Amino acid sequence: MTDLILSLDPDNTIPLYRQIYAQIREKILSGHLPAGTPLPASRKLAKRYHIARVTVSTAYEQLQAEGFVTSQVGAGTYVAEQLPLPHEPTAFRPSFSKWGKGVAAAGQKIEETTPNKPEIDFGFGRSFPHIFPYDIWRRLLDRYLSTDDTMLSRYGSVAGFNPLRSAVADYLRRMRGVNCTTDQVVIVSGIQQALDILARLLLEPGDEVLVETPGYPDALKLFQLHQATLTALPVDDAGFPVEKIPQHSQARFAFVTPSNQFPKGGTMPLERRLALLQWAQEHEALILEDDYDGELRYSYHPLAALQGLDKDGRVVYLGTFSKVLFPALRLGYIVLPTILLGPFLQAKKLVDRGAPTLTQAAVADFITEGHFERHLRRLRKAYGRRRQVLIHTLQSRLAGKIQYSDVAAGLHVMVYLSQEYDEVEVVRKAAEAGVGVYPGQSYHIKKAPGPSILLGFSGLNEKEIKEGIRRFATILEQIAGNPADSK
Amino acid sequence: MTDLILSLDPDNTIPLYRQIYAQIREKILSGHLPAGTPLPASRKLAKRYHIARVTVSTAYEQLQAEGFVTSQVGAGTYVAEQLPLPHEPTAFRPSFSKWGKGVAAAGQKIEETTPNKPEIDFGFGRSFPHIFPYDIWRRLLDRYLSTDDTMLSRYGSVAGFNPLRSAVADYLRRMRGVNCTTDQVVIVSGIQQALDILARLLLEPGDEVLVETPGYPDALKLFQLHQATLTALPVDDAGFPVEKIPQHSQARFAFVTPSNQFPKGGTMPLERRLALLQWAQEHEALILEDDYDGELRYSYHPLAALQGLDKDGRVVYLGTFSKVLFPALRLGYIVLPTILLGPFLQAKKLVDRGAPTLTQAAVADFITEGHFERHLRRLRKAYGRRRQVLIHTLQSRLAGKIQYSDVAAGLHVMVYLSQEYDEVEVVRKAAEAGVGVYPGQSYHIKKAPGPSILLGFSGLNEKEIKEGIRRFATILEQIAGNPADSK
Repeated sequence: MTDLILSLDPDNTIPLYRQIYAQIREKILSGHLPAGTPLPASRKLAKRYHIARVTVSTAYEQLQAEGFVTSQVGAGTYVAEQLPLPHEPTAFRPSFSKWGKGVAAAGQKIEETTPNKPEIDFGFGRSFPHIFPYDIWRRLLDRYLSTDDTMLSRYGSVAGFNPLRSAVADYLRRMRGVNCTTDQVVIVSGIQQALDILARLLLEPGDEVLVETPGYPDALKLFQLHQATLTALPVDDAGFPVEKIPQHSQARFAFVTPSNQFPKGGTMPLERRLALLQWAQEHEALILEDDYDGELRYSYHPLAALQGLDKDGRVVYLGTFSKVLFPALRLGYIVLPTILLGPFLQAKKLVDRGAPTLTQAAVADFITEGHFERHLRRLRKAYGRRRQVLIHTLQSRLAGKIQYSDVAAGLHVMVYLSQEYDEVEVVRKAAEAGVGVYPGQSYHIKKAPGPSILLGFSGLNEKEIKEGIRRFATILEQIAGNPADSK
Repeated sequence: MTDLILSLDPDNTIPLYRQIYAQIREKILSGHLPAGTPLPASRKLAKRYHIARVTVSTAYEQLQAEGFVTSQVGAGTYVAEQLPLPHEPTAFRPSFSKWGKGVAAAGQKIEETTPNKPEIDFGFGRSFPHIFPYDIWRRLLDRYLSTDDTMLSRYGSVAGFNPLRSAVADYLRRMRGVNCTTDQVVIVSGIQQALDILARLLLEPGDEVLVETPGYPDALKLFQLHQATLTALPVDDAGFPVEKIPQHSQARFAFVTPSNQFPKGGTMPLERRLALLQWAQEHEALILEDDYDGELRYSYHPLAALQGLDKDGRVVYLGTFSKVLFPALRLGYIVLPTILLGPFLQAKKLVDRGAPTLTQAAVADFITEGHFERHLRRLRKAYGRRRQVLIHTLQSRLAGKIQYSDVAAGLHVMVYLSQEYDEVEVVRKAAEAGVGVYPGQSYHIKKAPGPSILLGFSGLNEKEIKEGIRRFATILEQIAGNPADSK
């Protein structure tokens, strides 16, 4: 009989039988209790540690169930024979695929927490919680949380919850000029997921893709990860310069933001939209229209989507609820040409079964009952005002020294500075003054032609915007006043 | 002045100005209103159609904003010059990547609706809505739906909501014997998403992967889509036969279901688990442990996970809430060896930003406040009883004529029939009798050695199970009684 020393703690949240089980298990695995060793009778062990016998026998039963010990009536319990004990541990070193190495090289920073959140944060894409009608949202969720609703208990459809697809199709037809049926709408977890599936379906390594620069970095990184060759055209005030597409371009698709170029700002005029469609037709190419904030225009009505001009099924339209409801919702949508629908759904089914039905059902009702459009009107008013405050405050201090798009739209303003400024320095000094602003370089594939700063205003109130821009302007003035100091 | 014929419907939900806008737009795009054509003055058009002048001018403004017309004070409104009008439509024919073609070849059926839902459906993975404590769930959701909670308004962390990761880590350590820190736990939308990212990180075309057969079809299809060479080992009553791994196997990883082999049933004994770890160590390979229903054992305590035996960081553990809470939740988790954590998160950030924060927060509280383990106990009781009813009913009619795993676990029973039966016929006749049962062949990569039928019991009550199995048994008896009739 081996001398089995256990260290039991009745105050631990782990039950005593699990403690006994775990310690004996560990002694067997480490070789301290060799094969064939008899364990003490459960009665003896219980007595020694002043615990109930059933506690010990439960532990023994678990060990037996898992194959660590064998037990025969009348013959006691023994450490199992012939267990192939593990070698000395050797740390696992995976070898990654080309894709896996590319991910590491793309060097996406994983920011788990923001330890020094700035006092006033001009980060992009934040939504302002007080604008969202949480009372209505809660009511809609509640509606689907009754116990007799079996909807929640099923796997959802891979294309999305049908009433939501239908509500989105109807909304896009009416408000965004998108030409689509319900079938063409697929609910995704966000634009990024949709782009990833499209890239996988369409791109072979080396295939060319046309993109805007500056542009949406996560999309550019994703295409690069698919080993696409990016042809990046520098945008002007009217977005993607279609006339500059190289004559011999073999691009499989163009990824564009016609409603409001991201991040520079600016709307693609009709001539360019039609010219892009012509180019696509002549080159058997596809157009990916990222309409991430097409709803958010503060002067005119929102412009109709490029997709609505397409007669060939050459435009894929991408939209998201992240900006207009709230980001944590994790819902977006894609409108696919019919010919891409089947492959897209088949791919999606293999990689992701779909968004939670509950949220989808609530968003569907939010749209069909008119809350969505009411909310959009409120958002446009609120964000339009915020943008105005930002622009006025900038103007009053820095008129003539900065440039920005005058399209009143979106959730941010990209401010272009003169060459004397160093983005990194501006960002750093702003941070020291408690203001979070973001360097334009990160939206460029190559070195940007000049310094620029992204100012998102959607997460701040008007007072915060005024104060933040005041501090930002002071920093720009300081740097301009002390150029010697600026490096 | 052109004769502009419009067809306006004041009763349509589309506002009149949008109708005017859309019809003029269409006439311009189709060439019916050529460049330079003057549009009627808004006053005249308003008068002709008995509508307010502002309606027409709003439409004109929108057309002007979008570039379809130009307008100068005093000079009227004209169709824009130099619009590159689209060619004749030519339908887009995409050319797909190898991956895209593979998706189509994998031939995933997209079942949008089940037109003839059987009266009694023995489908797999359904959850029984009345068992889930919706009242508690609603209370937890409500807690996070207050307007002053800014959590909902931010993008979530790519690794998942931290309190949920911590709750899952704690639960897995205590209840599943998983050896992990909170950092190692990543929240995913389901096991499928986790497998897809892992395959992309690790597999090059042609790389070998060890799998079980029969096995989980969506995982096998996914590995095939990554152009892996599958080495499928036929499982026995003790799961994956480690001793039959070919000597010269170069497999990058083995995908196994040690707790309860899917779909055959059966638990991998300790010797095999340790031998598999040894194999992985000797071959620099990884083990993917799919513990999709490890919690659901109805006789013994659940067995500890294989991951807990690993000292090298060679086991990736995959779990899901779909089976134990409800499928529409779309939440799963993966426990990664530290060395894979960074690459996995970097990849996930590019392809999917993460699950909705609200649901994650509610599930976190559901676990930490003890509801989860209480619910699991209820589930085990309820499902254990249902399985017993199913087995007893089968036994009483078909004893000796069928085989099945006697491990009381999971959400289904796989019934093996003698060679005289034809799966397709059994499934069809059952459907005619209002009973949904599922062919075993779909879980096999090659032709299965014999007929088998999958009977999921988790979505049915005891009465339905009795009645369904009664009808199923009658069909088997009929076929056996009329072998001539059976083809």
